Parts: sequence; C-alpha cells; structure tokens
Amino acid sequence: MAYLKALERLIESLSKLPSVGKKSAERMAFAILNMDEDDVLEFSEALKNVKEKIHTCPICGNYSEEEICEICSDNTRDTSKLMIVSYPKDVIAFETAEGYKGLYHVLNGVIAPTRGKGIEDLNFTSLIKRIEEGNIKEVIIATNPTVEGETTGLYIAKKLENYDIEITRLAYGLQMGGALDYTDSLTLVRALEGRRKL
Amino acid sequence: MAYLKALERLIESLSKLPSVGKKSAERMAFAILNMDEDDVLEFSEALKNVKEKIHTCPICGNYSEEEICEICSDNTRDTSKLMIVSYPKDVIAFETAEGYKGLYHVLNGVIAPTRGKGIEDLNFTSLIKRIEEGNIKEVIIATNPTVEGETTGLYIAKKLENYDIEITRLAYGLQMGGALDYTDSLTLVRALEGRRKL
Repeated sequence: MAYLKALERLIESLSKLPSVGKKSAERMAFAILNMDEDDVLEFSEALKNVKEKIHTCPICGNYSEEEICEICSDNTRDTSKLMIVSYPKDVIAFETAEGYKGLYHVLNGVIAPTRGKGIEDLNFTSLIKRIEEGNIKEVIIATNPTVEGETTGLYIAKKLENYDIEITRLAYGLQMGGALDYTDSLTLVRALEGRRKL
Repeated sequence: MAYLKALERLIESLSKLPSVGKKSAERMAFAILNMDEDDVLEFSEALKNVKEKIHTCPICGNYSEEEICEICSDNTRDTSKLMIVSYPKDVIAFETAEGYKGLYHVLNGVIAPTRGKGIEDLNFTSLIKRIEEGNIKEVIIATNPTVEGETTGLYIAKKLENYDIEITRLAYGLQMGGALDYTDSLTLVRALEGRRKL
C-alpha cells in the first residue's frame, strides 16, 4: 500500500522545503492531518497569499507588499547612503538592529561560478542605474563574509570604482559577547588588522 | 521594521509544524518566496485537499479517502486477525513490509497519564465493538516498544482477556542487519528470552 493520494501530494510539496527530507515531510504531513482544520486552511491561505501579495521592489529588489517598498518610499531615510546586501533577509537583519538610516540594494544572490551564477543573475543593472542617477555618495558593501559573498562584494566594488562615490565595506572583527578563544583565526587576524585607536 | 504581513503570517503557520522553530520557519518562508508560483499554489492546494479528502475510517480508525478505508473494504484480507497499532503510520509501515494480510485497528495515540491521555482519548470503544461482533480470532498487539506503548498494549490485553480470542504481541529482538554490540541491553535480554529452536 502506498500513501493515500492526498497525503502523497502533500508530502511531495513539503519535501521541497529547505532541509526537509522524505522522513521529515512524512512526519509533517501526519502532523498536519492532526491539526485543526482552521489552522490548515489558514496555512493554505498564507501560502497563496505570500505569492499573490509579495513582489520585488523595482528600485531596490527587496520584497514588498506595495508597488515601491516601505524603505524606498520612506522620505525620512538618508538617500546618500546605499547598502548592498545579497538577500532580503539581510535587510531585515539590519532593520531589526536599527542604527542604519540609508537605503538598500538587494542583489538577490551571489556570484557563484561553481553553481553557474554570474553577475547577470543578480539585481545589478538596476544598481548601476541608481548610482548613475547621482544622489548616492556612499556605497556600503554588506555581502556575507563567505568566499562567494566576498567575491561578489569585490566584483561590485571594482565595477563602481569609476563613479565619484565612496565605497566601504562592513568591518570584520570579534562578535559582541563572543569569546576570543572561540573566534576563528581568520576573524582574529581581520580584527587585528581593523584595530582602532581608543 | 517587522516582516511583511503576508510573510509573518506564513512564518506563523510554518512554526506549527513539528520540530520547526522560528528560525527554520523564516528560512522556509524565504525559500517559498523564491519558489515557482505553480509549486506554491500546488502546496497550498495540497494542504486544503488533505483536510477535505482524508478522514478517519469509522471501522478501524485509519486514514481514508473513501467512506470505509481500503483495507477494511478489501475482502481478500484475513478478517480473523486484528493488529492493534497506535498510529496510521504504523499501518503504512506494515503494509510496506507486506507479509501481514489481516486487519488493523488504529488507536490514534497511547495512554500517557503524564500528558493527561487516558483510554477514553483512544479509539477503544470501536475496538470492543469489533471484537464483540465475533469474527476475530487473534488480536496482535503492535504498539510501539516504548514505555507508553507497552503500557497501552498491556492495558488493552487486560481488557480483552475475557473474550475468547488469542492475544499476541510482536516479538522483541535484534534488528535485521543490526550489530549485536550496537544493540541496547534491554533488547538483548528480550532477544534472549524470545529465543527459538533452530
């Protein structure tokens, strides 16, 4: 006996979620069968809704429920600063941290030759367009501190060097609340290089 | 900035899945945003469908897409044998393994006093009804080999002792393909107790 068709179909969909294998998908499907009907319908609606309501902001590439996203359309933000991040979740991380009032540009990926991802797969043309409009004075590279993130950041910095803008990148260093002896050596070296006068 | 409302709603639903915390739910929600629209709509439909189409078989308590489940309505099965399991997934495990052609009864849980679960929360009245109908000659207790599963099995065996039926339980022993030195001591003792003549 195989699974009931309706169950099989749900397991199939659940298996497409990140880090969900066949076994977890089965466990989830059985849990869903045991949920209140209202919760399942709400889940189903939330899925449909997320694709219907959320699209990409044509200016910065971040997710938005409005035509232009909340940040791009907020005229209290400092439009002279542009932070370049790889993913929408990085914007959320910075917005949650507060302390940055400039604008963002979401590349929506990284350059990853081994996975066949080049600059043409990133939200890059619109970045150049924003820079050529001339308001931006500083571009802050905030790609992830990984090999692919760094490569992407360096590539973009290179492409922007002929424009009259300051290009900076986030500091590498110790994590707040972290312990020196639990910090990897590369980070330690970077923290040393980036030391500042007290 | 908080998440977009549609995203927040989806994260909320995903967090209700077993072993999915806030962070995994967020990661899943972002993956869903990156999925093809068709895949997301299919997922949404599959969820709605699973609750609409699947209900509990009134005879055995297993999940079914028909009024009476596939197994209860299959007249090639041996109606003199009844295997008692805790969950629908246990039926699937046995059906996948093949080799059993009797009927099942799904309790849909275990007796777990610490979680306030008693016999009245299980699919037990319908079990007695089936047994009183008189066809069943053997009841095979196949609850999980856990404390709660064993307790439930013993309780049911006790309740059935006044009926003229044979009550058996699954053998405990070594796992096929397993290694002796990786088998826990309780299982080793049970395997020894259950030894058979060659």
